[in-house]
Amino acid sequence: MVDFLDRVAAAETKNNSLLCVGLDPDPARFPDHLAKEPDAIFRFCRDIVDATHDLALAFKPQIAYFAGQRAEEQLRRLIDHIHNNTDIPVILDAKRADITSTSRLYAVEAFDVYDADALTVNPYFGLDSLQPFLDYKDKGIIILCRTSNPGGAEIQNIMTQDGIPIYEVVAQKAADDWNMNGNVLLVAGATHPSELRRIREIVGQMTLLIPGIGAQGGEVSAMVEGARGGGVIINSSRAINYAGSDEDFADAARKVAMATRDAINEAVAAICENIRD
Amino acid sequence: MVDFLDRVAAAETKNNSLLCVGLDPDPARFPDHLAKEPDAIFRFCRDIVDATHDLALAFKPQIAYFAGQRAEEQLRRLIDHIHNNTDIPVILDAKRADITSTSRLYAVEAFDVYDADALTVNPYFGLDSLQPFLDYKDKGIIILCRTSNPGGAEIQNIMTQDGIPIYEVVAQKAADDWNMNGNVLLVAGATHPSELRRIREIVGQMTLLIPGIGAQGGEVSAMVEGARGGGVIINSSRAINYAGSDEDFADAARKVAMATRDAINEAVAAICENIRD
Repeated sequence: MVDFLDRVAAAETKNNSLLCVGLDPDPARFPDHLAKEPDAIFRFCRDIVDATHDLALAFKPQIAYFAGQRAEEQLRRLIDHIHNNTDIPVILDAKRADITSTSRLYAVEAFDVYDADALTVNPYFGLDSLQPFLDYKDKGIIILCRTSNPGGAEIQNIMTQDGIPIYEVVAQKAADDWNMNGNVLLVAGATHPSELRRIREIVGQMTLLIPGIGAQGGEVSAMVEGARGGGVIINSSRAINYAGSDEDFADAARKVAMATRDAINEAVAAICENIRD
Repeated sequence: MVDFLDRVAAAETKNNSLLCVGLDPDPARFPDHLAKEPDAIFRFCRDIVDATHDLALAFKPQIAYFAGQRAEEQLRRLIDHIHNNTDIPVILDAKRADITSTSRLYAVEAFDVYDADALTVNPYFGLDSLQPFLDYKDKGIIILCRTSNPGGAEIQNIMTQDGIPIYEVVAQKAADDWNMNGNVLLVAGATHPSELRRIREIVGQMTLLIPGIGAQGGEVSAMVEGARGGGVIINSSRAINYAGSDEDFADAARKVAMATRDAINEAVAAICENIRD
């Protein structure tokens, strides 16, 4: 098996892209011509995958959108389609975690049932809950650190008696204690660039999955500046998924994906310029 | 709709029970006669439900055991079976949470797709991630506070600058800020009776879901003593599910469920005696 991070690196090089295309299929926002198809969810996502696979370094289906519509089988077909037609790795966004014996089943769900290449997980239960995921050494285990939602600070920014917020403790543990297999990544939202910088200082070159650009409003240049110094996977979902609402929705998605990829690359180039000066 | 907590209270009275029967179906541990049935997962759980429904105040299927085996349809059938044949409320144990728009879909999964009466959720994203669940006012929203696993202390017991651990902050927020609809409960593990007592002091009469007795080793009397002063739902899963391994597994499950229920009631009675003395 090729490791997740190697697959990400290969896609990054091939497509000159740091963009992860998220897949949040909401039938209420589908174009009319798909509305009556029994497998509309699969078709919608497949068409976006086919239109953007040369622009992305990863795809990230969000499992709630499938499970909330009894569309688990369509999610399996979608991931099969990505594996059979592209070299782009698949991040299953599911934010799982539980006691060890249960996490083991969630790992089976993600990696055996769905054949995902990486999974998002929640750190609240501690290391023993993460171990069954981490034991899949060729998979990427992407631990929530600082999330992109407005309320994320409520728990994550609580200051500890050591004078650092909880999300920095999670970053430290991820870098120092939890990454025994070299397959840990962290979620660090684009909506908080200064905190992104602190996380980067703590974790060194560890790859960060950065949600929050696009529909969530995070700015690309501030985010790229905050995250520089290591690997990044920058996600946009709804801004790409719902760029169009007609039969040409996949073309519209492609245009937004290309513009987003290019904006990220320009922001990176601008930073490189500054460093060379 | 009858509120979740009212249904729990009715089942508690009718069955004279504080016991929640967890359902963690692991085919590797099923009796031989079920092994070849295509719906063995449903049949196993159904037989335990039928053998224990007069001894429980709730049933708690753990979704990972179903999703890890592509058995979502069997989970739906199981919950239908419980609703159609008993008055016992169903807690879907799934530990969900994400940004608001995604949590909304997880709520649909739990309450519309599966018709659960309550759901376990993770507090790491903060209130805005919990709001879509809390908005289902007749459902029970059971927020992780102090989990029963050995590693739970790693994040949950980090001391804040205010001199209290994170799990106490979660308990305070749950009691003071998050319970605007009166449908919040907390997960507080039986494996830490002194912490259970602190949580009880903070949340007053709020109902606690207490995992960790049975296979996880928590002691009943210490747990009941720690939790007294408000509602409790005391869960045992594997000790009941795998009490037997032959064709009479459901009878064996019934015997252990009855003994567990009675041990809990005896512990409660002993405390009442002490209070009267």
